[in-house]
Amino acid sequence: MTATLTVQTPGRGFVDITHDVDRVVGEAAVSDGVVSLFLLHTSASLVVQENADPDVRHDLEQWMLRNVPDGDPRYRHDMEGPDDMPAHIRAALTATSLTLPVREGRLLLGTWQAVYLYEHRLRPHARRVAVTVLSAA
Amino acid sequence: MTATLTVQTPGRGFVDITHDVDRVVGEAAVSDGVVSLFLLHTSASLVVQENADPDVRHDLEQWMLRNVPDGDPRYRHDMEGPDDMPAHIRAALTATSLTLPVREGRLLLGTWQAVYLYEHRLRPHARRVAVTVLSAA
Amino acid sequence: MTATLTVQTPGRGFVDITHDVDRVVGEAAVSDGVVSLFLLHTSASLVVQENADPDVRHDLEQWMLRNVPDGDPRYRHDMEGPDDMPAHIRAALTATSLTLPVREGRLLLGTWQAVYLYEHRLRPHARRVAVTVLSAA
Repeated sequence: MTATLTVQTPGRGFVDITHDVDRVVGEAAVSDGVVSLFLLHTSASLVVQENADPDVRHDLEQWMLRNVPDGDPRYRHDMEGPDDMPAHIRAALTATSLTLPVREGRLLLGTWQAVYLYEHRLRPHARRVAVTVLSAA
Repeated sequence: MTATLTVQTPGRGFVDITHDVDRVVGEAAVSDGVVSLFLLHTSASLVVQENADPDVRHDLEQWMLRNVPDGDPRYRHDMEGPDDMPAHIRAALTATSLTLPVREGRLLLGTWQAVYLYEHRLRPHARRVAVTVLSAA
Repeated sequence: MTATLTVQTPGRGFVDITHDVDRVVGEAAVSDGVVSLFLLHTSASLVVQENADPDVRHDLEQWMLRNVPDGDPRYRHDMEGPDDMPAHIRAALTATSLTLPVREGRLLLGTWQAVYLYEHRLRPHARRVAVTVLSAA
């Protein structure tokens, strides 16, 4: 079972894709296994984070702003603007691929976990995620 | 083959789970494939690191303390204490899921590699890791 | 289908292994699934990054030099030189395992994506990557 999710982002920030992933898992005839996510872009990323308190995402974003600054004059790669190169660095520091457990036909996450597409560019983008469901041996 | 490991952590630091993972692999009837690990928490993480010199883990932890400081007054999310938000940032910078090779029925790692659960909270926790063994095509 | 790639690195920097991975995928009789890569070393890593503008890799490397400095006197682990410990920290911040989609018998990446082995040591090394191809359910 394979699928491609298209995720519309509102610009920089987190989009919860947990339900989209779980829906693909539900359509696959797999009881136990994994679902593999791969983001087909290098200026956004995938993260598993707490979904209870939105301040967690806020503080993570603020850490990125302080440590991977936009518009750093030392960047050579700035063709698409001051958020171009930091987006690539943020992606390298987080994840492009995630492999999540499937149990009894459903995506298994911890109590407070959600799967986010983390947009690093300031402007909205349509991001594609390749999804593959695999059965345990 | 699926399993759930419960790992007792002594507070912040590294717990070597290599043997636990290899034991699950040994119980699975898989000659060649992978074992997928997923940590069901967002304030700890999974890392593959050198197991020879404990100074490597010490220096990695010190880097985290310098670059993702505890108790930074700029964090909004501090409900559970000064180590709460940095734990989430550390988790985003390291890994929540790892996929490791299985060869001839055993976990395959490099000579100096071990798999660690990296606890980021100061107090001990019971952490759960979902383990899935999959067979190569 | 399993394989081991041996990648000769010229010292610190990025080696594009996309074609090597795609060749292994092509030899596997898998139409849809994933290919799992695992680097058998802890002082190099795997990253998916833009392949169009080499300045992206340059700027990522410069960020690492600024934020994970070589020869920091606070490192205890320096047996193999000033680039020893930063190599381990860089590896923890990027990835040791990647799982990539396979579609219609080929590696699927985004338009501007390539898979790189990111050497963090200054001297050339022979690095091994365990490759496992798995079929979707």
